[in-house]
Amino acid sequence: MSAGINEVEEPNSKVLRLGADAPLQLESGAILAPLQIAYQTYGTLNAERSNAILICHALTGDQHVANVHPVTGKAGWWLSLVGPGKPIDTDRFFVICSNVIGGCMGSSGPASINPQTEEPHGTDFPVLTIGDMVRAQARLIDFLGIETLLAVVGGSMGGMQVLAWASMFPDRVFAAMPIASSAKHSAQNIAFHEVGRQAVMADPDWRRGRYVLEGTRPVKGLSVARMAAHITYLSEAALQRKFGRNFQDRDAPTFSFDADFQVESYLRYQGISFVERFDANSYLYLTRAMDYFDLAADNGGSLAAAFKGVKTRFCLVSFTSDWLFPTSDSRQIVHALNASGASVSFVEIESDKGHDAFLLEEPNLFATARGFLDSAARARGIKEAGR
Amino acid sequence: MSAGINEVEEPNSKVLRLGADAPLQLESGAILAPLQIAYQTYGTLNAERSNAILICHALTGDQHVANVHPVTGKAGWWLSLVGPGKPIDTDRFFVICSNVIGGCMGSSGPASINPQTEEPHGTDFPVLTIGDMVRAQARLIDFLGIETLLAVVGGSMGGMQVLAWASMFPDRVFAAMPIASSAKHSAQNIAFHEVGRQAVMADPDWRRGRYVLEGTRPVKGLSVARMAAHITYLSEAALQRKFGRNFQDRDAPTFSFDADFQVESYLRYQGISFVERFDANSYLYLTRAMDYFDLAADNGGSLAAAFKGVKTRFCLVSFTSDWLFPTSDSRQIVHALNASGASVSFVEIESDKGHDAFLLEEPNLFATARGFLDSAARARGIKEAGR
Repeated sequence: MSAGINEVEEPNSKVLRLGADAPLQLESGAILAPLQIAYQTYGTLNAERSNAILICHALTGDQHVANVHPVTGKAGWWLSLVGPGKPIDTDRFFVICSNVIGGCMGSSGPASINPQTEEPHGTDFPVLTIGDMVRAQARLIDFLGIETLLAVVGGSMGGMQVLAWASMFPDRVFAAMPIASSAKHSAQNIAFHEVGRQAVMADPDWRRGRYVLEGTRPVKGLSVARMAAHITYLSEAALQRKFGRNFQDRDAPTFSFDADFQVESYLRYQGISFVERFDANSYLYLTRAMDYFDLAADNGGSLAAAFKGVKTRFCLVSFTSDWLFPTSDSRQIVHALNASGASVSFVEIESDKGHDAFLLEEPNLFATARGFLDSAARARGIKEAGR
Repeated sequence: MSAGINEVEEPNSKVLRLGADAPLQLESGAILAPLQIAYQTYGTLNAERSNAILICHALTGDQHVANVHPVTGKAGWWLSLVGPGKPIDTDRFFVICSNVIGGCMGSSGPASINPQTEEPHGTDFPVLTIGDMVRAQARLIDFLGIETLLAVVGGSMGGMQVLAWASMFPDRVFAAMPIASSAKHSAQNIAFHEVGRQAVMADPDWRRGRYVLEGTRPVKGLSVARMAAHITYLSEAALQRKFGRNFQDRDAPTFSFDADFQVESYLRYQGISFVERFDANSYLYLTRAMDYFDLAADNGGSLAAAFKGVKTRFCLVSFTSDWLFPTSDSRQIVHALNASGASVSFVEIESDKGHDAFLLEEPNLFATARGFLDSAARARGIKEAGR
């Protein structure tokens, strides 16, 4: 479909293919079958099948957590956190990450071929929810023969999936770690997503979602969407610290619409590089799933009811300068978990890096993850690495 | 140029036309001649010519402060503040507001006809600065025979002009009231503007700025730009209060890309209605002027130097929930004014309405403006209204 993305049908990943005999019923009422789930694993599942950690990726992430990315050639997006001896220690844990359905790295999504038409789905792909993503992941966990995950961990949209896992499959989640996330998408966040979708759909090369068939790609629209979103991932302080009002390769303004300022040049690069690795329709579907996420609404208006009787132990993390998923969002979840009698710890990490902090070198995040997972592993009787 | 905007050459306003004998030298080095300035006035200039208040409009505002708008048919944008008996009392003061150069409501801008080519300027119009806007306004004030303005008042980009007025023409500004403004545009604000510009320029109907000639209009791109900007004008709390996650005319999600949520519907409307009254190239030029604004940089890196020896009395206003021009921006100006020995008062108004608060019913803003202008008028010996 693009120069960059040839991962849709035959990804550089393990693949679970479920046929028409195992249809996935979606929240919309639509049926998804066949269903393909692309995933990566790291480490070894122990004999007791008790050491599996599922990582859930964010909006523009994928399953390539800790290996070189097959499209960009860059290091895995959470290589700082996941690997031998790292906080999510692959010498000790069996780590799984699957591309979400609706994505474009090998799991069924709008870029996948619709077997009925033998053309890419485009916008005839059913609109999904976070819950649907989790139901698909549960199929993979079934397939891997894992009854109860040691932990489900993820940031941002990944954190939404963690919360949905604990709410929908409480017996299958021993520990849950939602990072920089929320139990519902805010009006402001819906608004930013809507801007991004309108930018994509305004691009005449979007062709009502049929761009692959028509040999075009809405690169300009998707690039603008990414630029707008990227601002929300950083804090004002981080932008000030990194770029301020510095000029890019010049000493004075050009009095033109060139990228005079470093921050402009940086944003343009973020937009351009994103379109090389991401499918525009997937962007529409995944932002929509996040907008629809409202765990309280799904449980009669009570967030505590979403976690009723849950035995999962929780650790929530937020970052002080994150204005997309602010600490107040995490605190709301903590209150609901307390109300439902769950075991919960909460760490607000001081950082000026904004929402992006969950992907960056944050020693306090690493220490928190290590401590929480180590404690969960010991509670579950999992041996330390190398013993 | 559009169904809505026929105001460029023959606006429904008073017009000052300056010919080739009165060229305006711009900061870029370019010369602007001829120069047209469209303006509105309200009230009567007194015999001493001492009661004139210049209002400077914001990015997407115009000179129609307190009269019905000739394109939209809506009330003037500051009708709450300006009029008989209002805080900016037109029974007492002579109020002037001109469309900024670069605008599209009758002052020279990219939509104006270039007399050399007899075609609209488009992007051959010179890139402007806030200082250039102020120099053009000074020509108008000269023409009106006013030596020293009683006050210059404006919010946002209007506030930038107020600051530039006081810095460039300190003897001509008795009192200055910059509201929700800044002495320099921040990295985050430049970033949001760049997204808007890229959205416009990504629209194939922009035609490298020559859309009028080619019979197109980049309405989709400009609409996306407006949507993104509009989010920054509101606070998270205001969005939550006004819209939350409420559905628009439905009880449940449609599982589609329709405007399911009220906030989506609202934003789409903001985008669509904006393009009816605004020129896309003007949007590029005015955002660029704001990005370039850095009063300290223009004065050897010292904001205090920008106000050296100024006798103008200042009143600054910020709003607690304004994250586009936060209180810290105003405070920085206050510190510089204090350092330069100026007379300055500063009011931070508690409001959850975000940056937009300066345009809305804010009794504390009204009271502050009334008190400040009344005090300035008394200091200048201007009679009260009706006496």
